[in-house]
Amino acid sequence: MIAALSTRGTSTGGPKEAPPPYRLVSMEGKASRSTVWVSGVPFGPGAVTLVAGPCSVETPEQTLQAAMMAQAGGATLLRGGAFKPRSSPYSFHGLGEQGLKILAEVRAVTGLPIVTEVLDASDLDLVSSYADMLQVGTRNAQNVALLRAVGRAGLPVLLKRGMGCTVEEWLLAAEFIAHHGNERIVLCERGIRTFESATRCTLDISAVPLAQSLSRLPVVVDPSHSCGKRELVLPLTRAAIAAGADGVMVDVHPDPESALCDGRQALTGDDLTELATSVSRLAAATGRVVTRPRPREEHRVAG
Amino acid sequence: MIAALSTRGTSTGGPKEAPPPYRLVSMEGKASRSTVWVSGVPFGPGAVTLVAGPCSVETPEQTLQAAMMAQAGGATLLRGGAFKPRSSPYSFHGLGEQGLKILAEVRAVTGLPIVTEVLDASDLDLVSSYADMLQVGTRNAQNVALLRAVGRAGLPVLLKRGMGCTVEEWLLAAEFIAHHGNERIVLCERGIRTFESATRCTLDISAVPLAQSLSRLPVVVDPSHSCGKRELVLPLTRAAIAAGADGVMVDVHPDPESALCDGRQALTGDDLTELATSVSRLAAATGRVVTRPRPREEHRVAG
Amino acid sequence: MIAALSTRGTSTGGPKEAPPPYRLVSMEGKASRSTVWVSGVPFGPGAVTLVAGPCSVETPEQTLQAAMMAQAGGATLLRGGAFKPRSSPYSFHGLGEQGLKILAEVRAVTGLPIVTEVLDASDLDLVSSYADMLQVGTRNAQNVALLRAVGRAGLPVLLKRGMGCTVEEWLLAAEFIAHHGNERIVLCERGIRTFESATRCTLDISAVPLAQSLSRLPVVVDPSHSCGKRELVLPLTRAAIAAGADGVMVDVHPDPESALCDGRQALTGDDLTELATSVSRLAAATGRVVTRPRPREEHRVAG
Amino acid sequence: MIAALSTRGTSTGGPKEAPPPYRLVSMEGKASRSTVWVSGVPFGPGAVTLVAGPCSVETPEQTLQAAMMAQAGGATLLRGGAFKPRSSPYSFHGLGEQGLKILAEVRAVTGLPIVTEVLDASDLDLVSSYADMLQVGTRNAQNVALLRAVGRAGLPVLLKRGMGCTVEEWLLAAEFIAHHGNERIVLCERGIRTFESATRCTLDISAVPLAQSLSRLPVVVDPSHSCGKRELVLPLTRAAIAAGADGVMVDVHPDPESALCDGRQALTGDDLTELATSVSRLAAATGRVVTRPRPREEHRVAG
Repeated sequence: MIAALSTRGTSTGGPKEAPPPYRLVSMEGKASRSTVWVSGVPFGPGAVTLVAGPCSVETPEQTLQAAMMAQAGGATLLRGGAFKPRSSPYSFHGLGEQGLKILAEVRAVTGLPIVTEVLDASDLDLVSSYADMLQVGTRNAQNVALLRAVGRAGLPVLLKRGMGCTVEEWLLAAEFIAHHGNERIVLCERGIRTFESATRCTLDISAVPLAQSLSRLPVVVDPSHSCGKRELVLPLTRAAIAAGADGVMVDVHPDPESALCDGRQALTGDDLTELATSVSRLAAATGRVVTRPRPREEHRVAG
Repeated sequence: MIAALSTRGTSTGGPKEAPPPYRLVSMEGKASRSTVWVSGVPFGPGAVTLVAGPCSVETPEQTLQAAMMAQAGGATLLRGGAFKPRSSPYSFHGLGEQGLKILAEVRAVTGLPIVTEVLDASDLDLVSSYADMLQVGTRNAQNVALLRAVGRAGLPVLLKRGMGCTVEEWLLAAEFIAHHGNERIVLCERGIRTFESATRCTLDISAVPLAQSLSRLPVVVDPSHSCGKRELVLPLTRAAIAAGADGVMVDVHPDPESALCDGRQALTGDDLTELATSVSRLAAATGRVVTRPRPREEHRVAG
Repeated sequence: MIAALSTRGTSTGGPKEAPPPYRLVSMEGKASRSTVWVSGVPFGPGAVTLVAGPCSVETPEQTLQAAMMAQAGGATLLRGGAFKPRSSPYSFHGLGEQGLKILAEVRAVTGLPIVTEVLDASDLDLVSSYADMLQVGTRNAQNVALLRAVGRAGLPVLLKRGMGCTVEEWLLAAEFIAHHGNERIVLCERGIRTFESATRCTLDISAVPLAQSLSRLPVVVDPSHSCGKRELVLPLTRAAIAAGADGVMVDVHPDPESALCDGRQALTGDDLTELATSVSRLAAATGRVVTRPRPREEHRVAG
Repeated sequence: MIAALSTRGTSTGGPKEAPPPYRLVSMEGKASRSTVWVSGVPFGPGAVTLVAGPCSVETPEQTLQAAMMAQAGGATLLRGGAFKPRSSPYSFHGLGEQGLKILAEVRAVTGLPIVTEVLDASDLDLVSSYADMLQVGTRNAQNVALLRAVGRAGLPVLLKRGMGCTVEEWLLAAEFIAHHGNERIVLCERGIRTFESATRCTLDISAVPLAQSLSRLPVVVDPSHSCGKRELVLPLTRAAIAAGADGVMVDVHPDPESALCDGRQALTGDDLTELATSVSRLAAATGRVVTRPRPREEHRVAG
């Protein structure tokens, strides 16, 4: 399978294709796909890992409630934005360091490690002092300075695909990170820009098996940001797991109607329970197990 | 779920949205989604139906072998093109009536009912005299004259989404058929045109649950034409079933390398066996059963 | 210039590219681009031809007024839809033969030859008995049966690009027509489907010089349907002429607010006068002349 | 015209549309579009300004030759990349500060002010000490940290549209810069991602008049990066000027075949002379004048 796939179109090409330009993250010459560990939580072959949490950290109460919902629903990693990249300067841009502190407190209570976005190389030390995993967002998917910086940071990275980027460009963005010293990268498909306007973006489900065969990196899916509609998050999660994704990341909120960001796509606790049941079934149907919480003492303590 | 979804973007809109413009095929005011029967084969809630066959009918031997592979792999409906719409006038355009005769002979041997494409209203009587189900292809997804004609024909219709059409336009195409008298329509998602060139088109997996909630019509997926790569057909089939698709349609060929059309995406018999196992597991994981072959005497005899 | 261009991506490719698959309409081996004559009106090198008229024929009065506006604005060919392909079965679909009769009466009064759309091979004799030029619309850009039929008809053809079709597929659609006997084809760029939703489609202005260097056929632009906004029609017309288009086709309506189809993009008489001034200036700036009306007796009399 | 346009689709909407979310850069409530001055070179109404130079600064000789070609061809601003954002970590990424020094030397010789890209907030002081104008590239079009930083810098900004960004998102990116204190912004359309692969991106020519009516900022076009093919740069330049663009920016190279970046799209000196003639004619045809070089003593001296 691997040999036949390529990001270079569907032609059979000439006698021999050139090696892929993303040599470090490529599958070529590797025995098997990688597992990336995030404070005891694995992403990789054999496991299906659920990441959940609020789109934005708003208050300690909202974040803790969302985290407890996430945990009750089987999530083993907490997502939450303290630095939010938004399209408008007048939108809510996150609480910054105050948000990071809230995340750390919630981690202390729940034991869930944290993935949170870093927007700029200058924030990297600050964010790294709180986070278990750094997220590079879709708007920064080709921000070379940031990619280099997270390559030099010591933490694992969740790399979202740019909404205007090809699979090849996504793998090359990962290669930037790897080239600067960090191969602990989890790829995250989150939908691309297309002419279809019924959904916010178009989840490119084919990118999951494609990236998994071209690259040795784990691949997860963010159905919430792909579609922008709560009602589609469950079927898209099922599709992602069935396609072979190594996990999914979903938005949850204790009160979606009042969310400061993207409430329209946030799951409630009941939604998440239903989703967790589906994830278990689909993981079993594809020969994998859902990642279970680790004993508390293994969790990293926030800096 | 149904009330909240719309093809009109992701905004919550004003106080009340207008009724959808595809009123006959809409879910609004209906108790449940429809089941469409094709010579004893169901498409609809509770069932997962596998359609397989050669992209093009080339010879009696190739068609029979492909049909037996399809049947051995669990397919209950045979696909096969006698009239092929191609982008170039110099490509193979199918055997025409001779191809229809071969399909009928293969149906007589295998008992598999036939779905085959009709390209023009003037061919409708001819194709209808052989087919169990008419296919309207992606290039004719907005060919109004053909949509009206198949609306007046007595056979069920497999309506592919136009590769440049929104979900709303796809449902409106179905509405044309329904408006002219025929509500036995199965929608088929087959990928849309996007900037990603690693796959032939981009399978819009979100369109499956979206169309199912907006419309009462069954929705199937054609992973073969979506991606154009054999290696992706299996994971995309799993994704389609997990997303809730009422079936999948795949290309098979006894000798893909020699296929006159789209051999690059055709499954072999072994591939199809593996796919059938996956389909069974995924159907079970989503609370459905795979459609089983009907006893031979129930099959329609070709005209 | 010609040798370096290709529809096959931006790579320099291997030692030698294969000849284009659209051999009849290709520039390869031809001394110069073609001029297509429509009842005395030229499309081709050296001339800039303005086509204008109502999107749909609604009444004799509206059509005559629109035609007189078109003529006063310098148009030498009248557009007007009698058979309208619409996305919804509940939209206005044109007056059919009654619309063709109105167009013929308006031609008798104004002397303007007529281009009008044909939707289906079965309507071809009827439409051909009234029209000076047949239009194949964007929704039928890959309707192979129709392309073959207009290839066998004796009239020149205005071939719109499919909104989901590449330049190569557009040229291949033209090749279908040429292959069936008719090389009197004018290509019409009318916008493609993209993620940008501020305009109805995205005018692919690069397709104009690209198609002109790859093919010997004239290329015109329909700015009205590309953008769907009256205010953009004038700057897009200027851009089209400057890019080298052999003409433009625009919607005009005596009362855009009451139009049964696409009134939002229709020009008024004053708009068209302003546009005609721009067209003259741009034609001069690019070394060409605007096509002038022919003496009345040369016009074809309707059948 | 202005009141009727919107980035919010083509519907006429409700009784009254909300004010645009990009209030500082909006046309609403302003008497006229702005002119942005760059070391004596104007961008804005009435003027057509030509920017040219090498994609990348490679050597002092190559840069000086390219600059002299640019100047001979009528350019009044020199482009040249010292920090290059590339998709692959293994591509040439520019000479960094050494490149900035070369640009400053070439400015001292030719008198041409310099626009050059800044990739990261941490490089801003360095780049600002050499540049006359800062470029924010397409890959950083939604890099919020960089947008904020250039908003606080004292230099004018050339803001490229993200290849996956809507016009609204582009204007919001400008709003970020304006919101942080800098309204000296020139917008640059450089093509968007679409399914058409014959060109590198698809130049969205409609975005020029659209952005000019929605925003008071000048809008220029980069035809070189839009199409990626030298042969299309001239017709696209003509289209841009005719559509009303306040200028164009093109790649030139003394020896395109040996260019370290994007040589396939670079113009030669002869190409640029031909282009300059076209630009003059088109400017005249649209009632504007081409910006002429300023006397030498007005140029800024590099820091």
